[in-house]
Amino acid sequence: MGKNSAEVVSIGNELLIGHTLDTNSFWIGKKLTQLGWKLERVTQVRDSLEAIKDCVNEALRRGPTMLFTVGGLGPTHDDMTLRGLSLALKRPLDLNAEALHLIREKYALLDRAPSLNRFRRKMAKLPRGSIPLPNLVGTAPGVLTKIGRTTMISLPGVPSEMKSIFTRSVVPVLRQAGAKRPEEFRVRIVGVFESTLAPVLARARRKFPMLYFKSHPKGRETGVRSLIELHVYSTGEGTSKTIKDALSYVLRELRRTVRTPRPRGW
Amino acid sequence: MGKNSAEVVSIGNELLIGHTLDTNSFWIGKKLTQLGWKLERVTQVRDSLEAIKDCVNEALRRGPTMLFTVGGLGPTHDDMTLRGLSLALKRPLDLNAEALHLIREKYALLDRAPSLNRFRRKMAKLPRGSIPLPNLVGTAPGVLTKIGRTTMISLPGVPSEMKSIFTRSVVPVLRQAGAKRPEEFRVRIVGVFESTLAPVLARARRKFPMLYFKSHPKGRETGVRSLIELHVYSTGEGTSKTIKDALSYVLRELRRTVRTPRPRGW
Repeated sequence: MGKNSAEVVSIGNELLIGHTLDTNSFWIGKKLTQLGWKLERVTQVRDSLEAIKDCVNEALRRGPTMLFTVGGLGPTHDDMTLRGLSLALKRPLDLNAEALHLIREKYALLDRAPSLNRFRRKMAKLPRGSIPLPNLVGTAPGVLTKIGRTTMISLPGVPSEMKSIFTRSVVPVLRQAGAKRPEEFRVRIVGVFESTLAPVLARARRKFPMLYFKSHPKGRETGVRSLIELHVYSTGEGTSKTIKDALSYVLRELRRTVRTPRPRGW
Repeated sequence: MGKNSAEVVSIGNELLIGHTLDTNSFWIGKKLTQLGWKLERVTQVRDSLEAIKDCVNEALRRGPTMLFTVGGLGPTHDDMTLRGLSLALKRPLDLNAEALHLIREKYALLDRAPSLNRFRRKMAKLPRGSIPLPNLVGTAPGVLTKIGRTTMISLPGVPSEMKSIFTRSVVPVLRQAGAKRPEEFRVRIVGVFESTLAPVLARARRKFPMLYFKSHPKGRETGVRSLIELHVYSTGEGTSKTIKDALSYVLRELRRTVRTPRPRGW
């Protein structure tokens, strides 16, 4: 995979049985895109040591710059992400002093009579060489692990905790890479079939290979007949000037080809 | 993978850039669970021939009973699912007479002067040996392909079209397998830490290995301090009687261990 590439492995039976919509990986995808990173793949798997191990190993073989795991860091038996990583990386789980300190501090604030039972201490057992990332919202710390050229970040599945750690500890790392934020434009086209628009887009793609054109048929969703959202964005290589030239071309071609186009939102 | 197992490969850049939430695989997960099937994994990938080919091949090696692909069946250049399948299966794309007939019928209803240009005909080019599934809502037919013990179903990404084909053509196949619908119960627990609940669940798991116990911390999401949703369900093996016995045990243990439990929803 290329520079500034990323993958997400989202862990939890609740995602696969239609109980919880995986808004975490969606949110991470949006953040990565805004920062000029490219999310290549999201995998959702069940709470199974074998499945977690396999997913992480498969992702590491593809070699993204960043690999996120989401979920499974809590105190209960079905929270098995760190054990899965330990198996995948063949690194033992060690009680991490810094992580234990973070967890102790949190429970001191929350509990009248805090005691770190084995279920609480479990959250401080990290794969050897990993670093805890403070969780200001909940109790389970995030975990950062370097594996070759990949930085793996493990985040809790509770959305507010995931977002807090991501914003505080991950965004600064993503910014350091200095990726170029892609330019993008959207336009809505009414009363034209996607199959009629297709040849126009084929010509635009040949002329502007540095741009990405994608049409989303929306008519059936909104009740308007043949409503298409056209999404045009740079792959990070096109300059602002190129993008403007390309968009003028697309607009001109659309007007020329389709008899009665009514593009909106330009 | 076991009997009545399934995987979903969800295709489209829009899923990975934070533009579109993948409600399709979520909906499929819910339906499969209701029918007693087990969705093992969901993979979201970009509109890339290489990525689609790899994902499908990886899924086929794991050998689910059903493999769903969602998205990329439309007329435009970035709709490349069937080409990806053709590469993965090493089967050429043939113009399928039945699919072409279905597409011609749809455009005859929609278009005043229907002509099947190459972009429309593209939707009828199926991997050799595949069967089209009628799309009553949109134009691109679904596609059924048998590969060894796996049945692969390719569905369009527009949710209303996906759901229509799934309900009409897939549900009858899933029902034939005669899987046992799992029993499930949910209970909300207020004012107890997840790390305090953990030992109770550990005991319950040892006593009732045929049941699945999962706790979802919800406190931070809803503003209530330490609100946990406990989800208990059978893996399809436990009888209704066993489940009731197990639930009584869990409730008793919860009451005994936690000083002031306030379980709701029993």
